[in-house]
Amino acid sequence: MIESSARESRVTHDALSLAERYVAVRALTAALAEPLSDADATVQSMEDASPAKWHLAHTTWFFETFVLRDFVPGHRLYDERFPFLFNSYYEAEGQRHQRARRGMLTRPTLDGIRAYRAAIDEALLDALPDLPPKAQDLVRLGCQHEEQHQELLLTDILHLFSENPIEPALWPSSHRRPAALPAPIGWIEHPDGEAWIGHDGDGFSFDCEGPRHRTLLAPHAIADRPVTNGEWADFIADGGYETSAHWLSDGWAWVRREGIAAPLYWERSDGIWTRFGLDGRQPLDLAAPVTHVSFYEADAYASWAGARLPTEAEWEAAAGRHNPCGGNLLDAPGPVEPRPSAGPAFFGDVWEWTGSAYRPYPGFRPAAGAVGEYNGKFMSGQFVLRGGSCATPRGHVRASYRNFFYPHQRWQFTGVRLASDR
Amino acid sequence: MIESSARESRVTHDALSLAERYVAVRALTAALAEPLSDADATVQSMEDASPAKWHLAHTTWFFETFVLRDFVPGHRLYDERFPFLFNSYYEAEGQRHQRARRGMLTRPTLDGIRAYRAAIDEALLDALPDLPPKAQDLVRLGCQHEEQHQELLLTDILHLFSENPIEPALWPSSHRRPAALPAPIGWIEHPDGEAWIGHDGDGFSFDCEGPRHRTLLAPHAIADRPVTNGEWADFIADGGYETSAHWLSDGWAWVRREGIAAPLYWERSDGIWTRFGLDGRQPLDLAAPVTHVSFYEADAYASWAGARLPTEAEWEAAAGRHNPCGGNLLDAPGPVEPRPSAGPAFFGDVWEWTGSAYRPYPGFRPAAGAVGEYNGKFMSGQFVLRGGSCATPRGHVRASYRNFFYPHQRWQFTGVRLASDR
Amino acid sequence: MIESSARESRVTHDALSLAERYVAVRALTAALAEPLSDADATVQSMEDASPAKWHLAHTTWFFETFVLRDFVPGHRLYDERFPFLFNSYYEAEGQRHQRARRGMLTRPTLDGIRAYRAAIDEALLDALPDLPPKAQDLVRLGCQHEEQHQELLLTDILHLFSENPIEPALWPSSHRRPAALPAPIGWIEHPDGEAWIGHDGDGFSFDCEGPRHRTLLAPHAIADRPVTNGEWADFIADGGYETSAHWLSDGWAWVRREGIAAPLYWERSDGIWTRFGLDGRQPLDLAAPVTHVSFYEADAYASWAGARLPTEAEWEAAAGRHNPCGGNLLDAPGPVEPRPSAGPAFFGDVWEWTGSAYRPYPGFRPAAGAVGEYNGKFMSGQFVLRGGSCATPRGHVRASYRNFFYPHQRWQFTGVRLASDR
Amino acid sequence: MIESSARESRVTHDALSLAERYVAVRALTAALAEPLSDADATVQSMEDASPAKWHLAHTTWFFETFVLRDFVPGHRLYDERFPFLFNSYYEAEGQRHQRARRGMLTRPTLDGIRAYRAAIDEALLDALPDLPPKAQDLVRLGCQHEEQHQELLLTDILHLFSENPIEPALWPSSHRRPAALPAPIGWIEHPDGEAWIGHDGDGFSFDCEGPRHRTLLAPHAIADRPVTNGEWADFIADGGYETSAHWLSDGWAWVRREGIAAPLYWERSDGIWTRFGLDGRQPLDLAAPVTHVSFYEADAYASWAGARLPTEAEWEAAAGRHNPCGGNLLDAPGPVEPRPSAGPAFFGDVWEWTGSAYRPYPGFRPAAGAVGEYNGKFMSGQFVLRGGSCATPRGHVRASYRNFFYPHQRWQFTGVRLASDR
Repeated sequence: MIESSARESRVTHDALSLAERYVAVRALTAALAEPLSDADATVQSMEDASPAKWHLAHTTWFFETFVLRDFVPGHRLYDERFPFLFNSYYEAEGQRHQRARRGMLTRPTLDGIRAYRAAIDEALLDALPDLPPKAQDLVRLGCQHEEQHQELLLTDILHLFSENPIEPALWPSSHRRPAALPAPIGWIEHPDGEAWIGHDGDGFSFDCEGPRHRTLLAPHAIADRPVTNGEWADFIADGGYETSAHWLSDGWAWVRREGIAAPLYWERSDGIWTRFGLDGRQPLDLAAPVTHVSFYEADAYASWAGARLPTEAEWEAAAGRHNPCGGNLLDAPGPVEPRPSAGPAFFGDVWEWTGSAYRPYPGFRPAAGAVGEYNGKFMSGQFVLRGGSCATPRGHVRASYRNFFYPHQRWQFTGVRLASDR
Repeated sequence: MIESSARESRVTHDALSLAERYVAVRALTAALAEPLSDADATVQSMEDASPAKWHLAHTTWFFETFVLRDFVPGHRLYDERFPFLFNSYYEAEGQRHQRARRGMLTRPTLDGIRAYRAAIDEALLDALPDLPPKAQDLVRLGCQHEEQHQELLLTDILHLFSENPIEPALWPSSHRRPAALPAPIGWIEHPDGEAWIGHDGDGFSFDCEGPRHRTLLAPHAIADRPVTNGEWADFIADGGYETSAHWLSDGWAWVRREGIAAPLYWERSDGIWTRFGLDGRQPLDLAAPVTHVSFYEADAYASWAGARLPTEAEWEAAAGRHNPCGGNLLDAPGPVEPRPSAGPAFFGDVWEWTGSAYRPYPGFRPAAGAVGEYNGKFMSGQFVLRGGSCATPRGHVRASYRNFFYPHQRWQFTGVRLASDR
Repeated sequence: MIESSARESRVTHDALSLAERYVAVRALTAALAEPLSDADATVQSMEDASPAKWHLAHTTWFFETFVLRDFVPGHRLYDERFPFLFNSYYEAEGQRHQRARRGMLTRPTLDGIRAYRAAIDEALLDALPDLPPKAQDLVRLGCQHEEQHQELLLTDILHLFSENPIEPALWPSSHRRPAALPAPIGWIEHPDGEAWIGHDGDGFSFDCEGPRHRTLLAPHAIADRPVTNGEWADFIADGGYETSAHWLSDGWAWVRREGIAAPLYWERSDGIWTRFGLDGRQPLDLAAPVTHVSFYEADAYASWAGARLPTEAEWEAAAGRHNPCGGNLLDAPGPVEPRPSAGPAFFGDVWEWTGSAYRPYPGFRPAAGAVGEYNGKFMSGQFVLRGGSCATPRGHVRASYRNFFYPHQRWQFTGVRLASDR
Repeated sequence: MIESSARESRVTHDALSLAERYVAVRALTAALAEPLSDADATVQSMEDASPAKWHLAHTTWFFETFVLRDFVPGHRLYDERFPFLFNSYYEAEGQRHQRARRGMLTRPTLDGIRAYRAAIDEALLDALPDLPPKAQDLVRLGCQHEEQHQELLLTDILHLFSENPIEPALWPSSHRRPAALPAPIGWIEHPDGEAWIGHDGDGFSFDCEGPRHRTLLAPHAIADRPVTNGEWADFIADGGYETSAHWLSDGWAWVRREGIAAPLYWERSDGIWTRFGLDGRQPLDLAAPVTHVSFYEADAYASWAGARLPTEAEWEAAAGRHNPCGGNLLDAPGPVEPRPSAGPAFFGDVWEWTGSAYRPYPGFRPAAGAVGEYNGKFMSGQFVLRGGSCATPRGHVRASYRNFFYPHQRWQFTGVRLASDR
């Protein structure tokens, strides 16, 4: 079902006019934020996360700055203080509010930010028909950018709610029946040989997805599904978090320093594991893909399992045959969570840590101008994740898509797929 | 004018029934919080401060716990999770939420906390006529406790708003005309001799204000008014913050480490000083008492001025003849700020740092039970302040009242009165 | 025996010419440092401590700077880089090496510093006969200053050695036989009344010991001996470190944050307590005074014991009748440790925490010039200790002597004497 | 000259018996440490560095543990406390002393450690003839391991001495005449195509250098020499450290947080740059390769220069034709420093940052047993450096050799070679 509606969705998607696309993206963001209180939307739970209000405003600032300000003669800034407040990291765009203090902005209120969104939407839709192609491209980029923030908005709210001892739920639980445990992992074999990697230029992509280039793959196999919660519970039961031999040195130091003993949001009471999600605290679904694990944990798990993480090239080679709009991706407001898989899938549910450091492809050049700060400057210290998650808007991700996080981070919907040398 | 209405207020105050007193205190708290948004009331701007919502709930928890729970048979807790969330520091009352994470509680909402207040108010007023005297004393203590939190609520909101680059105002400015600069400091002489210090037991007092006891005062003089903003500006202009000789060693380390160069909330632009307050950023009133200075700054200023801070005994001996309900104290919602003094005053405007470390009086014994944690356990590392401020509810403070803060803290309305050996 | 030799020593002491006194002090410092290796003398084990080499050089710098440089025409600095390296905290003396980096100075070597000492000794003894009285006073002050550093040198080395897993001994153990446990604490009663406190000006004193002044004492009793290791073990066994009710709030936070569960250098193995000292790790002597406890611990113990710490005035009033040169004080190199007391004693063994914050006496004025930074600028955040320890050179301490440390510090030979309201 | 003696050295090297090799390596370590005082050899200047004494002991512990203990029946540990003290990071070898506290070990003394070395040398040379091949391989590995520590010993001492305001020199300066500035960078072109990368199994290599495998190289060019001090000075003069656009995001945060404005050990006085080295502070040689720069700096420089860093595969492909025993490598005690190059060279002078994250090669498996912790567990967060430096023992490095450090580290002799897409 999802598969077919997804296919339709993709067709629809491509057919949408830019204005329709803009309206749809903006509407989904608003819908996701709809159940938030003013306070929910304001508090910053850690430096890695941003307040929902900030996501709502920053994505709007992106359109106002790079489209309205730069391409619409006579556009007056909605509020002259907003560029300082809502620029994220574009050094070329001047001074900005400290990231760690984003949670201090109790004003403007959530309603004030909603008004800002409405005003920019109106101005942008007015201007859209007459925008030059370069500006239209920036509108497209802004939509992609906003989709990224939709996912961050959800994961940041989840983290915030997890810090509240009363553990609020954003949406009621779907109370799905426990699924049967999946069959053991099947292995997709890949022989030695060349593969083409990177975006082929057909449709939108981020600069870091290219240039498309050949690479050599060693003989290997890749799992046909992600690791499940049940399998992870076995890792814990086998002393996985207490056995240094499984861990990278930095990972082991992190485990000891932070007292890590399970995925984020897991708790154990009377021998029963629960997890916290956007639907509150719920029993752990052993059949679903494990999520909220760091790269360090993913790597240690793979080591314990006698396997390794796939490289991003291996992943992309294997995923290329799958539909990137299929799978458990984000369609609408409501609890998002990884779900037991009905069959081999590479997209949705969880972002899959690869063993590849996030570095430029051969011949990579950042885009010109301020938007050129989008990806290239983050190419140190982070690892690539692939495939999208249950919180990734459907249609946003593709086989060449490179997400990236630091190896200790785990508040995203991050999971593990195994690979093995052959 | 204020003097006479204050005197009336005091009369009224004493005459109020306990129920009337309870209602008045609770109403003032609610009125102070009235202009706050849900987000304003939720965010914690630093570990020293608490969210307004927390103040509103914690003061209510105090009544529910120590009165309703302990003295009203059959009282059911309003919410079983609240004791964990809203206990401040009473170890005897069990586990509690980490102080530094109070700002994570976006739920319950501000309206939810208002409903909690209403429910407890109703239950307490119902129960009040039948409460035993010991419980009525706890209601009186609870009112005093809530008055302390009224002041903290205002200073914490001020700090939060100061962290917002758009510098919101809670209330419009009173736009008072600049007052004439006051006459030079006059000195109130005091000869060598004994003085009685501490509360005499007539009316309410906190345990740390007693026992009343004799002390010996050396010959000295004490200033007839606090130091003004104008005088402080002279200290700055004379290199006060760059001259180590004026400073205590810990104070100098603090100045260098934190880059301190003026009182908190002061800014200089084009040679003009402004200050931030609950009415937003305003020109500095040179005639008003300086405020938001730390003990370290107060001590350095006194050293620069060839004087010293008074001891708390000297202060109390001098203040004993003054009306503690007179002066610039808090009566109602609206911008609070120190104001130029019309004459010698020891109460209101600013809490005055003394040179006395906060330690127990001879024979001090903490009260029994959980409320015994109220004062005694804080008797290390802090200095005594006297006299109340523009944010202290009128009627709350008295000559024997001992406030206390760490020597680097300055987000309260703290100021300086000089003394001198004779 | 010690008593009588102590008395003799005092007589001798007073009779010593200044040159003899200088030679004796300098020789003791050298003798204490004699067993140190170059490395022992160089490493800094924590920011509170200094390397032995630094103590050896800094005390020498004091004489060179304040005597030779300032009073001996034509004196050429021994090394122009030394003032930067060996100034401790005299802001008036200009820039100086960061305290926390003192342990980086592997050069000059220990032998190099010994040569520096010899050169300054020669120059100073040459100059001494012709020095003006003011300079001779500075030589006397320098000797007192060096005696203070003798104690710090020993406690800093002890701390350094405690950080070495092989736990070296500076000197062999005296292997004294276990003493009988002392009789229960006896109480010295003191009625209400005036007492004179502070140095009377007869002989040397530090500026902070004056002015001498009257004070009022409330009726109280003071213990006739310090608390013993055996009594402290009872406190531990009774859950003293796990019971928040005994502790000041700052103290409890310190216990939890640092995981404090016993005095510094205590270890428990198979139910047996040992302590580490300058003679290595040895069984705990239950009859000896407890040492290496912080103010927080001392205060908590007193609270547990139903008593309190004495004020410094109470202590001084009681100690005034005792011989400050008697007791277990430092005479010569060799293991120093608190020893079971043969009778009522107020001097030696352990510095006794008082309940008094270290603040100026009425009328206190710091000395003029750079040496005026000696005491006054430390008068915030610290507590007074009285009585000297086993590492305090005999003759250095007196009834009016005010030592001071922060309430969490415990690497000095610090202990506890109880007092009680009457 | 160096070239030819180097070639001879290699020949000799290969021909050396294992005993001769062992003796030579151990002797060089001792000779490097010869001018150190006991204190020089004891102090730890930062957590990244270790005391010289620790290097001397740890390398000895390696032989004692993995050879004598494991393969020589009846071997009694030299000192049972040493495994705890001198294990570095081998989790499988049990508990160990905290890395950050290595500088606390003033005992054993430097002479004590020298005696340890002598005893183990004697035992090992006695046992060597009868050791099984597997143990002989461990001796070979131990020699390689000790060569790595020879370089660390030098760079750690350099860092320690740099923390001393008197800036000691370990060896006198060679006072070489300034060389002429080198010709502009020449570019070695490389077409698209396959290359074999990794060690071919002929002679010693570390596990991380294999397996040897094919890789695809994009068309590019690589510089024929490293960037010089003079070129770096141009980067500084052009505002390189103040222009965010050149920097990776993490790098820019590091520059701002740490106040970085030049390579480590550079200082500017009166417009003249100097650098600190093992021969003390000396004028900067503009013709020599820049060193003590971090990956962040290297990457920013390349960006400023319109180039990029080479990948490790590109580097290895280009370096494969060069003699790894030629160039400015370490032969004997005496000042080591990068020197102006006489011609194209890929080995010696400075380790060259590549743009490759340090990750496993396809099919990589760590060695079995405790020595398997040697390389694999460090494969996150670090970048690969290639080519060896002036402090790398001649004969130690080869084209496939992979060194690795975190991107902010720069106390090694690290430098920059540019590459460019074609």
